[in-house]
Amino acid sequence: MCDTKQNGWEKNVRKVIPYTPGEQPGNTKVIKLNTNENPYPPAPAVEEAMKNFPADILRLYPDPSVGKLTEALAEYYGLKKENVFVGVGSDDVLATAFLTFFNSKKPVFFPDITYSFYDVWAKLYQIPYECKPLDENFSIVKEDYLQENGGIIFPNPNAPTGVLQTVEFIEEIVKANQDVVVIIDEAYIDFGGESCLPLIHKYDNLLVVQTFSKSRSLAGLRIGFAMGNEKLISYLNDVKYSINSYTMNQPSIILGVESIKEDSYFKETIKKVVATRERSKEKLKELGFSFQDSYSNFIFATHKQRPAKELFEALKKKDIYVRYFNQERISDYLRITIGTDEEMDRLFEELKSILNQ
Amino acid sequence: MCDTKQNGWEKNVRKVIPYTPGEQPGNTKVIKLNTNENPYPPAPAVEEAMKNFPADILRLYPDPSVGKLTEALAEYYGLKKENVFVGVGSDDVLATAFLTFFNSKKPVFFPDITYSFYDVWAKLYQIPYECKPLDENFSIVKEDYLQENGGIIFPNPNAPTGVLQTVEFIEEIVKANQDVVVIIDEAYIDFGGESCLPLIHKYDNLLVVQTFSKSRSLAGLRIGFAMGNEKLISYLNDVKYSINSYTMNQPSIILGVESIKEDSYFKETIKKVVATRERSKEKLKELGFSFQDSYSNFIFATHKQRPAKELFEALKKKDIYVRYFNQERISDYLRITIGTDEEMDRLFEELKSILNQ
Repeated sequence: MCDTKQNGWEKNVRKVIPYTPGEQPGNTKVIKLNTNENPYPPAPAVEEAMKNFPADILRLYPDPSVGKLTEALAEYYGLKKENVFVGVGSDDVLATAFLTFFNSKKPVFFPDITYSFYDVWAKLYQIPYECKPLDENFSIVKEDYLQENGGIIFPNPNAPTGVLQTVEFIEEIVKANQDVVVIIDEAYIDFGGESCLPLIHKYDNLLVVQTFSKSRSLAGLRIGFAMGNEKLISYLNDVKYSINSYTMNQPSIILGVESIKEDSYFKETIKKVVATRERSKEKLKELGFSFQDSYSNFIFATHKQRPAKELFEALKKKDIYVRYFNQERISDYLRITIGTDEEMDRLFEELKSILNQ
Repeated sequence: MCDTKQNGWEKNVRKVIPYTPGEQPGNTKVIKLNTNENPYPPAPAVEEAMKNFPADILRLYPDPSVGKLTEALAEYYGLKKENVFVGVGSDDVLATAFLTFFNSKKPVFFPDITYSFYDVWAKLYQIPYECKPLDENFSIVKEDYLQENGGIIFPNPNAPTGVLQTVEFIEEIVKANQDVVVIIDEAYIDFGGESCLPLIHKYDNLLVVQTFSKSRSLAGLRIGFAMGNEKLISYLNDVKYSINSYTMNQPSIILGVESIKEDSYFKETIKKVVATRERSKEKLKELGFSFQDSYSNFIFATHKQRPAKELFEALKKKDIYVRYFNQERISDYLRITIGTDEEMDRLFEELKSILNQ
């Protein structure tokens, strides 16, 4: 803004430094490996349902309880619908969870290298927090999470590192922190990690959050969900109904259900992404990159000779977008989303040519 | 919940009393006059766009700036895109505005009889507030809003009363309160009221909020928007980007634009609803109801002999849903949404028979 004069009303504005999402280029020629989208289209049943969508129902408010989608998820995961909360992407779910559960004067704990929305939500809602450094292999240090705190959150596998912790590791943290809510953000769990979901039956302080945006190829539909003890879910719903009764629109609900129903397509797509990821690990190693083993749909890699920023910019000039974080400890890493085999081959080719310059 | 034992983590939960939305019956036989939906389907262009929707783009995140829809709205209202903010229904827009602008220690003012979400948001975000009583004709008392405050919000026309204030009336309030943000919630303005939108060019503290849910027959798509000075909009965007970068899904953006483009259908639909409303006023008077003149798509009526609650329940038995608020000063009123002529005729018939019992 050019106008720097402060108006009277501006003193009461909540001033924040917002999260910066990855670029969404208008140019469709771009190979987009920067926001962890799935390179494959959503299930054919989703497209079919879109074509046959009863447009007339758009005049009506959606079911505020998102019943059909909640029930489909509950059935899929062997839960009751009272164990499932649905929101506008996992960001909506997580933001609502921060507001609902993190109201202690003690700090909420999360890793120093992690999803960069956590500290944005903490600042927005004026929640005290403390970042716990990952070790030199980008692993979470369990002991750090056994100190007194106001809540815990981390992604598993972690983003942007791709590093997975075991269910036993998570259980120790959840067990030692039963006086606070522990949120495990499993946005990438479908790509080969083991979910800690079964622990919700044992610990009523554990909330597991997942999303349709990555493994279900539905980033554009905005569906995320949380699973946990029915008390946790009921508190989440109370806060949701205190912000916006109808967060999920009719297309999200109807198409979301279709996605869940077509399970074979879902599993097949994951298989393809995982196969390409494993092949990409080999290729990246050959090109002189190193990285921790990834259990997600991206690889977080550093090159032994060339600065990440330089590679990021050189790739961008070739219309290949990857993600670069200009941030302490990781400023020499690129987060590369797994695309199709063809897209990855283009990436390796361009990288080879850039590295030879 | 049956289990009343408090767990340790529950002490840090934000406890709220959520807003209760009107019922969304599963039974499609019901004549739904309870949530102010439009009885006519959305524009044919919306249905067409749904049929031809490119399902493949659902795998990609939507444009976080909601560029196409923001631009379509800006063009329609003769504004710049920097003057427009879009959200998941006007509830999302208003909740975000409360969080962004109402951070004073002084109370926010709104009427005692008004949209019942205002005090829910105030409580959720711990914003002090004061309700200013409407006069005996359900009119806003201007002088009440000329006292020191932390912000002002009211709907125009007011809900659930349907009573409209003039633009001159609103200007006096906005002008006298330039040290705080004044939000005019114009959810129902398209049904015959005069919008105060032109005032945003004169007063940088005025935010005007509208919605696609009523006049555009798109309650099921969840689109609301705010218009105001670009500084106001920029602050709103900062907070939005601190909660959820991608609130509007791909279908909302694409179908929303189609709705704006088909302007003749929009105007025709409004004309039909207004004609039915005017006819309904006559009929309701004949049946012994009285009400303030309504400029919205509902009539807020009381009967001289029969209690509103009794009528509400008798109509429900006949599969006709209207809205009843069990609340001080208005517990003898029904809020009746304007349906099609056929639906209203069924309502009058049933009311006649109930009143004759």
